[in-house]
Amino acid sequence: MKVMILGADGYLGWALSLRLMARGHDVVGVDNFATRKSVAEVGSDSAIPILGMEDRIKAAKDIHGFKMRFHEGDVTRYEFIHKALKEEKPDTVVHFAEQRSAPYSMINAQHAAYTMQNNIVGTINLIYAMMDVNPSMHVVKMATMGEYGTPNFDIPESAFVEVEINGKKDRITTPKFAGSWYHWTKVHDTNNLLLANKIWKTTVTNIFQGPVYGTRTKEITDEKLHTRCDFDEVWGTVVNRFAVEAVLGIPLTAYGAGGQIRGYLSLEDSVDALSLLIENPAQKGEHRTVNQFVELLSINEIAEIVKKAAKKEGIDAKIDHIENPRVEADKHYYNPEVKVLPGLGFRPKLKMSDLAAQLIADLLPYKARIEKFRDRIMPHTRWTRTENAR
Amino acid sequence: MKVMILGADGYLGWALSLRLMARGHDVVGVDNFATRKSVAEVGSDSAIPILGMEDRIKAAKDIHGFKMRFHEGDVTRYEFIHKALKEEKPDTVVHFAEQRSAPYSMINAQHAAYTMQNNIVGTINLIYAMMDVNPSMHVVKMATMGEYGTPNFDIPESAFVEVEINGKKDRITTPKFAGSWYHWTKVHDTNNLLLANKIWKTTVTNIFQGPVYGTRTKEITDEKLHTRCDFDEVWGTVVNRFAVEAVLGIPLTAYGAGGQIRGYLSLEDSVDALSLLIENPAQKGEHRTVNQFVELLSINEIAEIVKKAAKKEGIDAKIDHIENPRVEADKHYYNPEVKVLPGLGFRPKLKMSDLAAQLIADLLPYKARIEKFRDRIMPHTRWTRTENAR
Repeated sequence: MKVMILGADGYLGWALSLRLMARGHDVVGVDNFATRKSVAEVGSDSAIPILGMEDRIKAAKDIHGFKMRFHEGDVTRYEFIHKALKEEKPDTVVHFAEQRSAPYSMINAQHAAYTMQNNIVGTINLIYAMMDVNPSMHVVKMATMGEYGTPNFDIPESAFVEVEINGKKDRITTPKFAGSWYHWTKVHDTNNLLLANKIWKTTVTNIFQGPVYGTRTKEITDEKLHTRCDFDEVWGTVVNRFAVEAVLGIPLTAYGAGGQIRGYLSLEDSVDALSLLIENPAQKGEHRTVNQFVELLSINEIAEIVKKAAKKEGIDAKIDHIENPRVEADKHYYNPEVKVLPGLGFRPKLKMSDLAAQLIADLLPYKARIEKFRDRIMPHTRWTRTENAR
Repeated sequence: MKVMILGADGYLGWALSLRLMARGHDVVGVDNFATRKSVAEVGSDSAIPILGMEDRIKAAKDIHGFKMRFHEGDVTRYEFIHKALKEEKPDTVVHFAEQRSAPYSMINAQHAAYTMQNNIVGTINLIYAMMDVNPSMHVVKMATMGEYGTPNFDIPESAFVEVEINGKKDRITTPKFAGSWYHWTKVHDTNNLLLANKIWKTTVTNIFQGPVYGTRTKEITDEKLHTRCDFDEVWGTVVNRFAVEAVLGIPLTAYGAGGQIRGYLSLEDSVDALSLLIENPAQKGEHRTVNQFVELLSINEIAEIVKKAAKKEGIDAKIDHIENPRVEADKHYYNPEVKVLPGLGFRPKLKMSDLAAQLIADLLPYKARIEKFRDRIMPHTRWTRTENAR
């Protein structure tokens, strides 16, 4: 199968590129290196050094014999994405080419506007270009579980749901309430994709994924093949950030009371699930909704897992509760449905408690490198401020 | 009261500027003249000639003694809107500065992306600039009844609604399903405004208005004071377009079976309602939701009203049903709640049947002018096409 990955230089994008090539697919990468630039902009860098795109493609060839083509460009430029699709004619396009940090979107007006524009226009462009080049192309779009917020109802794996409102029944889009400009861009994308599906019968898999953690997949067997690993307050997700804090010997910083529950999965399980969804596409004209995660865990549970794993590596980690920079509930109901992936044969291989020690061990050799960015870990970006110091 | 109107050069913006000045308010206009340019772009023009901004401000002074200041600029440029708010320090900002045509947004990828970017970024910029200059400023935002689509439930005048989903109760944002990229930008704005209200306690009146028709308000007493009146397939709304068709002696073109019901109101009633909402602002920190229309009418009923009115002017108008260029239900339930405006004392003055003959009479002197744009009336922009001829 020919698969084009928009955002192939990213955390998931690079790991998925390797996995799909390992499974014999023809992979074409696309990226504008926005994440590298934006991480540098906030004074940070990947905890684990990564090669440039040309070098990592060469390494994949040298080490695994993988061949990958790459187009540098920006999906928000319609001519670019149209030309890339027309030249490559992929069967499937995986769309990861979005600004993916909630705190980055909350820095100030410019960052909010950039996130809106970048994410929404990129998705609109992809849909139009795909409709022109091959209307039956399968678009695999990264949504986020964060689109739903923390509702009191069970989050179904469906774009629409039956409800009763003041005594009248109707079918509505599954309700969402996002907690940052970034998360709202994903809701806006989902809504736009539902209109495209209604008027043009687009074939889309929209993946509501929880936070991903870890540094490894089966293909990342050499340091030349590492994917990025962010840990700073803007770009790092919680598990990787806790692991870095353990490595630096500073307290694990749980935001607020730590009762916030989300659905987590490892990088290995994420690329495994994504491969299944690519190899088992949505039906023609179907807008398929998937909830993608492995374990429901609270921040406090994660902190305990990382603390325990650190002990195995000889580190005595402390847990600090600091003021939550976000506006979010830290005691709430959370019960998303997970049926689509198990139905395709998805069997998660790793739990966080299995993987946390390896994650810390992988980061330890880079302790000196990470030390340089120590001041980038504590939260500076607050939801309640409209102008945040960077 | 000092009121800044973003989009003061538009159909509603100019009429509201005159009304607020007549009521003794200090009005500051802002516009980038995007509508003038975009109407010219599709080869059309206002049915009734309008003066340039400098000349219409002069005419308002000469005729009514009104004084109005004006800033030319684009709300999508943050520095511009921030500077304008900082200089003027209005009590209220009315936000009409959005691309307002559904067909325009459906022309092709570029027009879809422009509409998304323009509308969403403008609203984000306004909120950030307002938070910096004066966080308790009252923002009066033009939303649209079109955000809801045509649901089976009664559309409440509230941002949130209680529902039951698979046996679980929750409070969700009032469900929406828009029918064009343009309409979705308004939903995206509404959602973004709800996050701003949650984290920053912004004071917003979000007005879900139905289609407006007519050429007159009490202040438009001279042809130099006319507001624009669009009639082409891209920019014209249905009533004004039917009136122009009657004037040209061509059939009134009802899209599809004509059963589509919407809530309509006259220009006079619209500026009257808007004045009430400005003079009776939302509570500090309140996100107030208002449904704004006067009559629920189907396309077929409107066609009959215009046909009857045309007869009074000696015109024998025919009604043609043509293929609907949009994707929309033409038989549906429609029952929006209207309580907020009546509670503020709003009493609609005009019904469409009272006004239609005057509308036609106002357009008749411009028949020769409108003739030139005759080929711009029939729909060329189809929802099912991704690339529309202009």
